[in-house]
Amino acid sequence: MRLIATPQTMSFQAPLRLQSGAVLRDYQLAFETYGTLNADRSNAVLICHALNASHHVAGVYEGQARSEGWWDNMVGPGKPVDTDRFFVVGINNLGSCFGSTGPMHVNPDTGRIYGADFPVVTVEDWVNAQARLLDALGIETLAAVMGGSLGGMQALSWTLQYPERVRHAAVIASAPNLTAENIAFNEVARRAIVTDPDFHGGRFYEHGVVPKRGLRIARMIGHITYLSDDVMNEKFGRTLREAVAGSATGYKYSTQEVEFQIESYLRYQGDKFSDYFDANTYLLITRALDYFDPAAAFDGDLVRALAPARARFLLVSFTTDWRFSPARSREIVRALVANQRDVSYAEIDAPHGHDAFLLDDARYHAVVRAWFERIARGAQA
Amino acid sequence: MRLIATPQTMSFQAPLRLQSGAVLRDYQLAFETYGTLNADRSNAVLICHALNASHHVAGVYEGQARSEGWWDNMVGPGKPVDTDRFFVVGINNLGSCFGSTGPMHVNPDTGRIYGADFPVVTVEDWVNAQARLLDALGIETLAAVMGGSLGGMQALSWTLQYPERVRHAAVIASAPNLTAENIAFNEVARRAIVTDPDFHGGRFYEHGVVPKRGLRIARMIGHITYLSDDVMNEKFGRTLREAVAGSATGYKYSTQEVEFQIESYLRYQGDKFSDYFDANTYLLITRALDYFDPAAAFDGDLVRALAPARARFLLVSFTTDWRFSPARSREIVRALVANQRDVSYAEIDAPHGHDAFLLDDARYHAVVRAWFERIARGAQA
Repeated sequence: MRLIATPQTMSFQAPLRLQSGAVLRDYQLAFETYGTLNADRSNAVLICHALNASHHVAGVYEGQARSEGWWDNMVGPGKPVDTDRFFVVGINNLGSCFGSTGPMHVNPDTGRIYGADFPVVTVEDWVNAQARLLDALGIETLAAVMGGSLGGMQALSWTLQYPERVRHAAVIASAPNLTAENIAFNEVARRAIVTDPDFHGGRFYEHGVVPKRGLRIARMIGHITYLSDDVMNEKFGRTLREAVAGSATGYKYSTQEVEFQIESYLRYQGDKFSDYFDANTYLLITRALDYFDPAAAFDGDLVRALAPARARFLLVSFTTDWRFSPARSREIVRALVANQRDVSYAEIDAPHGHDAFLLDDARYHAVVRAWFERIARGAQA
Repeated sequence: MRLIATPQTMSFQAPLRLQSGAVLRDYQLAFETYGTLNADRSNAVLICHALNASHHVAGVYEGQARSEGWWDNMVGPGKPVDTDRFFVVGINNLGSCFGSTGPMHVNPDTGRIYGADFPVVTVEDWVNAQARLLDALGIETLAAVMGGSLGGMQALSWTLQYPERVRHAAVIASAPNLTAENIAFNEVARRAIVTDPDFHGGRFYEHGVVPKRGLRIARMIGHITYLSDDVMNEKFGRTLREAVAGSATGYKYSTQEVEFQIESYLRYQGDKFSDYFDANTYLLITRALDYFDPAAAFDGDLVRALAPARARFLLVSFTTDWRFSPARSREIVRALVANQRDVSYAEIDAPHGHDAFLLDDARYHAVVRAWFERIARGAQA
């Protein structure tokens, strides 16, 4: 019996002041919930999404067999985050393009589509918006907040912005901030989008076009950084898409045709992404990644930055993840330990690079399952 | 007293059959030489260039103080490759855009500029063309061939295509072939160029435009892969270009303005590159990188592939080079050792990533200097 997901939307009229000083006068958030909130409202788990995901975390939509949520292997009945025991909430972040207010929506102040005028939102802003949704759902305290990558940054930020509202936090394949190299990859992707003639300064909706060229390049760059060198070699290696018969090398000797399997894979991923993802959202979300840096206000001292946290933590990293390497997770672990916080840390030996956090890895899932088991026992006691 | 370089050009009328089967009916090669060929013509050293370099290896042009060759710290009077002892030859490769026949030149068969019709050239083709230039210069045997990165692939290929003509080969920061990840980065760069509306199917010259957007993106991606994560963090870290006064974070909260120093650096590098480099050449040279794979004809067996080599080898790699990692150099070393070849190998602990091969590193230069000292003693004996 599959978990059936039902997307919901909630509107907020109270203005939300953003970190930048800008104010969202009103906005809506798309969300889904799975499982049942218990009587004392102590079993809620918030799942935070990363770059291109959404509130559709788990289950499928009625009558759409292949509409699994992005973390369906992790969240559901009997899964590591067990919806038979927890009330799980997935929220689409502000500025995204899957139902929550974002660049494709109308700015109530001007009556025009926001486009590139949508204000820059940060991890902290998302957490504030998520907290308001939980208020509306009557959830004062989270049993746990959990996320991978950019989602892990939100989970970490929850423990600093609302320390009394988070009992546990799972920060997966994440980092206390981006390195210069991470920012560099984001910037190239943004430049590819912004310099696409179809971007029209972010007002492409009015021109009836989409900056697909830029989105494709952005996604191709992203995909390279999500995978490990090893897994790329194993999956694609130097295999040709179709060797030319009668050629000693099998090469077509072309600079523009697809020659290697890896090229075909990347082009396909780029095409698919450019069909559904909003270009302005891509800019906003990569900027939120760039900006997150809780230690900045403490002269780079992460120990002081994490002092407010009260939650019990689970940190997980993956050996071949070079985008958010284990060393970055260990920085968080060390700073939490220095604050005498309760931290579990697992470094999973996995070949899949950053993508590993989304994949069905037995050891990884066993760690998460055991950690949530402990929470469930505490929550129900 | 600076070394003064004088570019020369030589024309070839004999058709050159390329690996693809295409034929270049006639062509010219731009080259420079430094030092003096000795009486028995035994002191010639060929330097092969990588992606965006040229025949201008060393010295400066008369009256242009800041026109140093791309490997001027390595080649010159008293330098590791000492032009007081060696006759050094730099050649611009076919298909490049610095004087040798390439996409910007007129196709004698059609009377039109080649553009994207310039035939795909390979490392093996370049070596064949280089050999013809050496024939014309009266150089039968090279004291040494040397190159870094793609240039190292040419040096290695020399020892396989013309084993009797190469006494020594220095293969720096190179690899026996590209990994899937390497190809992936090349492919993204190519797609950025090809999908730039100003590319016009490679016939942009006729439209009076240059696909600068694509070239900028290509160069930005390249630069990220030339540097190490460590050196990027050290050089740029998360430093803002200019912090906004009165903002707690210093951020401008903008997705398009330059916020971090690393963004400013990458944009500058992209702009500079797009002003001088030919887009079709970029496609050709990255394809030559993709295609190089001497073991392919031997079912991937590098030991058998390198069996023809007779040269003495120097391999050098750099610890933080993730584009051509030390592991890739060690593959070559092991295959040469299995063939009982004479190999010196140095793995230099350097923070600069792939770029290290172009930089002035004392240990690296000492290794190269000592190796050429030994050659010089042999050559002059």
